[in-house]
Amino acid sequence: MVSQYISHAMEKSSWIRRMFEVGAELKRIHGPGNVFDLSLGNPIIEPPQKFFEVMEDISRQTKSGLHRYMPNAGFPEVREKIANHLTKKNILKTDGKHVIMSCGAGGGINVILRTLLDQGDEVIILAPFFSEYQFYVRNHHGKVVIAETDEHFNIDIEKLEKKMNKKTKAIIINNPNNPTGKVYDKETVQKFVDFMHEKQKKCKRPIYIISDEPYREIVYDDVEVPPICQMYENSFLVYSWSKSLAIPGDRIGYIAVNPEMEHAQKVVDGLIFCTRVLGFVNAPAIMQLAVGELLDTTVDIDFYERKKKLLFQRLTAAGYEIEEPKGTFYMFPKAPGGDDLAFTERAKDEKVLIVPGVGFGRGGHFRISYCTDDRTIENACDRLEKIV
Amino acid sequence: MVSQYISHAMEKSSWIRRMFEVGAELKRIHGPGNVFDLSLGNPIIEPPQKFFEVMEDISRQTKSGLHRYMPNAGFPEVREKIANHLTKKNILKTDGKHVIMSCGAGGGINVILRTLLDQGDEVIILAPFFSEYQFYVRNHHGKVVIAETDEHFNIDIEKLEKKMNKKTKAIIINNPNNPTGKVYDKETVQKFVDFMHEKQKKCKRPIYIISDEPYREIVYDDVEVPPICQMYENSFLVYSWSKSLAIPGDRIGYIAVNPEMEHAQKVVDGLIFCTRVLGFVNAPAIMQLAVGELLDTTVDIDFYERKKKLLFQRLTAAGYEIEEPKGTFYMFPKAPGGDDLAFTERAKDEKVLIVPGVGFGRGGHFRISYCTDDRTIENACDRLEKIV
Repeated sequence: MVSQYISHAMEKSSWIRRMFEVGAELKRIHGPGNVFDLSLGNPIIEPPQKFFEVMEDISRQTKSGLHRYMPNAGFPEVREKIANHLTKKNILKTDGKHVIMSCGAGGGINVILRTLLDQGDEVIILAPFFSEYQFYVRNHHGKVVIAETDEHFNIDIEKLEKKMNKKTKAIIINNPNNPTGKVYDKETVQKFVDFMHEKQKKCKRPIYIISDEPYREIVYDDVEVPPICQMYENSFLVYSWSKSLAIPGDRIGYIAVNPEMEHAQKVVDGLIFCTRVLGFVNAPAIMQLAVGELLDTTVDIDFYERKKKLLFQRLTAAGYEIEEPKGTFYMFPKAPGGDDLAFTERAKDEKVLIVPGVGFGRGGHFRISYCTDDRTIENACDRLEKIV
Repeated sequence: MVSQYISHAMEKSSWIRRMFEVGAELKRIHGPGNVFDLSLGNPIIEPPQKFFEVMEDISRQTKSGLHRYMPNAGFPEVREKIANHLTKKNILKTDGKHVIMSCGAGGGINVILRTLLDQGDEVIILAPFFSEYQFYVRNHHGKVVIAETDEHFNIDIEKLEKKMNKKTKAIIINNPNNPTGKVYDKETVQKFVDFMHEKQKKCKRPIYIISDEPYREIVYDDVEVPPICQMYENSFLVYSWSKSLAIPGDRIGYIAVNPEMEHAQKVVDGLIFCTRVLGFVNAPAIMQLAVGELLDTTVDIDFYERKKKLLFQRLTAAGYEIEEPKGTFYMFPKAPGGDDLAFTERAKDEKVLIVPGVGFGRGGHFRISYCTDDRTIENACDRLEKIV
């Protein structure tokens, strides 16, 4: 039947999924309007108007060959446009040959890990983490190593160093961060990059940074996301339009390689090969064409910032301890009483769905997702105020 | 750098890819109009008119939620429609809960193998084979075992049985077949299924059939493709619209599970989980909606049949020995002289690109792809007649 590994992994699966099932059951019993779901990162905002205009235009194009196989890395013109955009925005100086279109960031990270990992190679992820990373690493024969961030969710170099050894192949960084809403600032990133450079020099081989940046544009108060891939040669920038255009169902993103990477050409060839053999073959053609026309378009970021403020103000006023999010549409408060599982249960009794911190590798907290409607947020606040 | 396995696999890579590079170089030297490329399975036919109408209609839909995450298995309504279609057409009696949307057939097969395989489990593929199968199996810790078909490319039960052992987890069947154009007939499939039932009974555990059927509709002379998944409980039907709608760039297909499969629910849950953790997350939303409206639409099959006839008549008249294709857009003639690599070189000298049989696990033959324009086919024929 189902393989032992998958069978086991499914049982553990993710807390987000588990809350989804709990939520479905609660909604069945009490009616969907009476359950206040802050557990899912599924944007309720609709894609920008320009997205629909571009899609309509593309769907009318009957130009020969648009729907055929293309190079596995994607349409060269689109890759070129993305590289120019990244260069212009000072995110990463690169060119079209170093951009590989992917099926979202999830597809992109799998392609990178498949390219890099030999059995037993270790990949470090920083807790609290996006829990899918663990599955991605294990898919490709890798070993997950977890390094804790500090109490403000900043990279803790000392703790990180203790987790590194001769098998360390890569570190996954998620900035802005899911689940905490943290944006690592310039100083943090510089210190981290300096440490990594030094570490590489000592062990005389590349240790890669995989920088997962699907929330790059969803930041508040003019915060800047430091261009980590520009600052570190052996790095991969992974991006998805799932959040910035609110199109997670459409599965479109890219991997951009720093052209200064050691043996960059061989690595790029590996990424292209793995895109093919993992069965992605290429990112969806139509979506490639669409995002090529939408590089300067995003959803209305104020939509999220307003909700963030509302939640943050009400919950801190009620006594919750929260590291104020600088981006994404998540926050990661401390669980009153310290037991996140017990607190999640208490919230559930009030028909509020949140995800316990343990699901992200840090107990004692819970994740709130605020990409939902104001009525849900307000009702959830009323109830969370009650049980603090 | 790149993992040892991937580095090694890339060197071997596929002959199709190698011919692509040879072709690109030849076209650069002699001009694209003077090179006659029969090596690639990239349809030159455009999608049917109805495809464009449906796409335009969908792209205009601003109904709330169309571009969000959906269940990882895909839109329930689309899955239901596909199940009804399969049931009505006597391909497989199933329901929407047993259909999982995939990123083409390549994505679907990877999801199935990830779900089923533990390290060291063996998967049998029948030579000549679609060479990507080897990579797909190895992606997921499996071992590739090759069983030869007979000289007419029919399933050879005796040879197959010798390759089976207690580690055999699944057999991949490709009907209609790439590279041979063979369509296994009802009698062959019945004998094969009887053998498999018996084999399962003896070893008291499932041995799965994965039936890869992207060419199901591209058949000639009213040939019928037997419904193998209906005839065998522990089976997966894998389909892609890449060929039937000529949209390989758009990456859309499905896995349909026979509901009579042992522990069907657990296996379906595994497929859904693996769709998620392999990074597909879900098949592209817009393409799911599109194919749901196009279940009875295909490209003009006569387009391929006419080309098949032209090639088959000219080449057999010139003395080539060819098993006449009953489907797909490939044929797999014997290489004159018996040495397929030498013959491929001779063809290349005449600026005709073909793929040597060794790339598909059977030397002494070569593959011709005729999803190309008539001028290319006629020029290639002139030259192949010369060098027979």
